[in-house]
Formats: sequence, C-alpha cells, structure tokens
Amino acid sequence: MRISKLSESAGLPVGTVKFYLRSGLLHAGRATSATQAQYDDSHLARLRLIRALLEVGGLALADIQRVLDAIDLPTDDTARSVALVHSALVPGDDCDADLATSREAVSGLGWSIDPESTALIPLARALEALASVGVEVPPERLRVYADSAFHAARADLHAVEEVAAEDKAVVAGTAPLVDALIISLRRLAAEHQLAQSAQQPAVPVPRLTFPGA
Amino acid sequence: MRISKLSESAGLPVGTVKFYLRSGLLHAGRATSATQAQYDDSHLARLRLIRALLEVGGLALADIQRVLDAIDLPTDDTARSVALVHSALVPGDDCDADLATSREAVSGLGWSIDPESTALIPLARALEALASVGVEVPPERLRVYADSAFHAARADLHAVEEVAAEDKAVVAGTAPLVDALIISLRRLAAEHQLAQSAQQPAVPVPRLTFPGA
Repeated sequence: MRISKLSESAGLPVGTVKFYLRSGLLHAGRATSATQAQYDDSHLARLRLIRALLEVGGLALADIQRVLDAIDLPTDDTARSVALVHSALVPGDDCDADLATSREAVSGLGWSIDPESTALIPLARALEALASVGVEVPPERLRVYADSAFHAARADLHAVEEVAAEDKAVVAGTAPLVDALIISLRRLAAEHQLAQSAQQPAVPVPRLTFPGA
Repeated sequence: MRISKLSESAGLPVGTVKFYLRSGLLHAGRATSATQAQYDDSHLARLRLIRALLEVGGLALADIQRVLDAIDLPTDDTARSVALVHSALVPGDDCDADLATSREAVSGLGWSIDPESTALIPLARALEALASVGVEVPPERLRVYADSAFHAARADLHAVEEVAAEDKAVVAGTAPLVDALIISLRRLAAEHQLAQSAQQPAVPVPRLTFPGA
C-alpha cells in the first residue's frame, strides 16, 4: 500500500508516519521510485504498536524505540522476550536510586531476584517517592501489592507462553498497555468497594485464580 | 525559609520553584518585601509531591495541577478523597473511547460501577489499544487482573482510611506513585517466576491477605 493508505489505516497523519520513518521507529518501505515506496501489514502493525505505546502506554518516543529494538531481537523464548522488554522499559537515567531499599523490600517477599536486576530501580524510586511525601509503605501493605502483582504477572507470562513463537516478543511488548489496563481496573475496584461499603460493611474477598493454573 | 533554602530542601533548582509559583502549582509565600517571600513546610511538602508525581508518577504538569486541585478541596472523607483524585486522573480529552467495551467488561466482573463513571474511559482505551495490536484479553485473563486489582485497591483504601482526616487527600493523591510501585513489583514478580520455572516447574501460589481484613 502507499503511504497515504498506510497512514489512513493506522489513524495517523501522513506527516507523523514520515516522521517515524525518518527517526527509524518505522522500518523503510520497498522503494518503487525515487519518491515513492510500498508498505505492507508489517508497517501497519508497527504503527499501531507505536501509537498504542504512545497514547495508552504513556511512553516517550525514546522509550518506544527501546521497546521496539527489544522486540526486534531474534527470540522465540518466553523468558528472553519478557526479560528484553522489561530491561528496555527501565529508563537509562535512573541510576541514582538507592537499590538497598528495594533489595531489602524484595528479600522480605522471599522472591529470587538478581541483586543487580534493573527492575529494582523503579521499585526503589517508587518507594523513595512515597517516602518523600510522608507515605511509608509498611511490610503488610507491600505484601498485598506484591501478591497482587504476583498473580497478574502469572497471567502476563501465560499470555506470552500461549502464543506462537514469532508473536511472543510483541505480546511481551504490550506490558505498558497491560499496566494501563491494571491501573484502570484498580480505580474501578476502588469505586466498587466504596459503593459496597456505603451499603454494607463487609466486602466479599474473591478467590484468586489464573489461567493455566 | 527563603526560596533558596526551599529549593535546596526540595532538591529542585530555584528557577523551577519560581516557575511552579508563577504557574500556580505552588501557592504563594508570605511576602516580606517587594521582591522577597517566606515559605514554610506546606510549600516544601507540596514541592515534594509535585516532584514525585512528575518524576515517578509520570504525570504531565497539567495533570498534576488537576490532582493538586482535587487534594485542596475540603474533605475529610475517604470515599470523597479517593473519588476526587480518581476523577482528576482521567484526562479530559479521552472522550472518544467506546465505553460499551468497558461497561461489558466490568459487568462480567460483577462490580457495582456507575455506567457513566469516568474510570471506564481508561479501561476502554487500554482494551482498545491491546486489541489494536492483536491482543484480545479473554475473560479469564481479565478476571485475574481484576482480582489482583481488587486486592490492591483494598490496601489503597485501607491506607487512606487509617490516616488522620487532614492527611486523607494527600494519601489518596499518591495513587500514581502506587501505580508505579505495583508496576515495578509486577516486573519483579515475572522475573522471580521465570527464575523459578527455570529450576522447578510448579510455582507456589501465595494466599492473598490484606491489612484490616
């Protein structure tokens, strides 16, 4: 398809598509003349992912580039796909965080985490940010969030496991969209619980189950 | 304290503090001359919250202004503090989302949600974004995320409930920092599970408990 059709299908202005081509976020089309090129479904899929990560994932273009680079590395393995995307999602300028905070928090949870894992950086930053505004997260509150995150992570991994090898990287790359999904569900869950508690004091606690268990 | 001391304590350049004063994010100090003013702990606390929401919460300044406006409304009630902050966190330009998607998803969960709730907008957007890149979220996967979100939301509400009336709004306003906390825990939980599954096939499922249950 021509660039006009590509941009229309992706719901983006032609100028934006041209900008993504120039900046390398979108791979070049097949040149058909000095000024024209043909694009295919791979370009459309890539544009949709860029748009979703930008508008819903809330990522900056530089972070999107890192995620796309991670997705483009050859892999058909769930663990490697997830690990590559996760490390791409930790911005490089975060190294001032004190990892002792998050190492201690994680060791209290009994999780096997590499003490040099970059995933410890955003945890340290979140705990420091909460402490800076006077909110200490006691171990029992952290435990609830960790158990909640543990269950969600199993569903994430299951989603990557169940797709074909060539799709694993893209499904792993949707992590920022799942972040947005879970955040929205947490707001709705609070709304539900507040509505319930206005009527009845005890809220039933659902049993956690997950696919593939 | 003078502005120089204020900016030093908050870890921000004086120019940034002046910009926040001019833009109304930070309330004015007590004028002591035509060109000088005195600031107190309320200014420092506000600067720390702005900085945390910007750097860790990932909010734009316009969204931070909305959260601060919500926090500043007089309330000493948990439900109202949370509802105000939640509605401030839904950007106003999101109204193109098709709420039928999220109403159907939420009704499948059995939650009591107002069909006009603005919290349905980000859920619709997240589901649409995932669908646009070819990832449909089946009901059983959505159920896991919803149960996970339900437990985390109970811990959120408990944290707001247990603080003094005058602190409820600020604790509710830390929701974007808790988002970052939970996202980081989900990445670490995946890392833990991948490490476990490399060694042993079955991962023990923790029992979910939460404070105040």
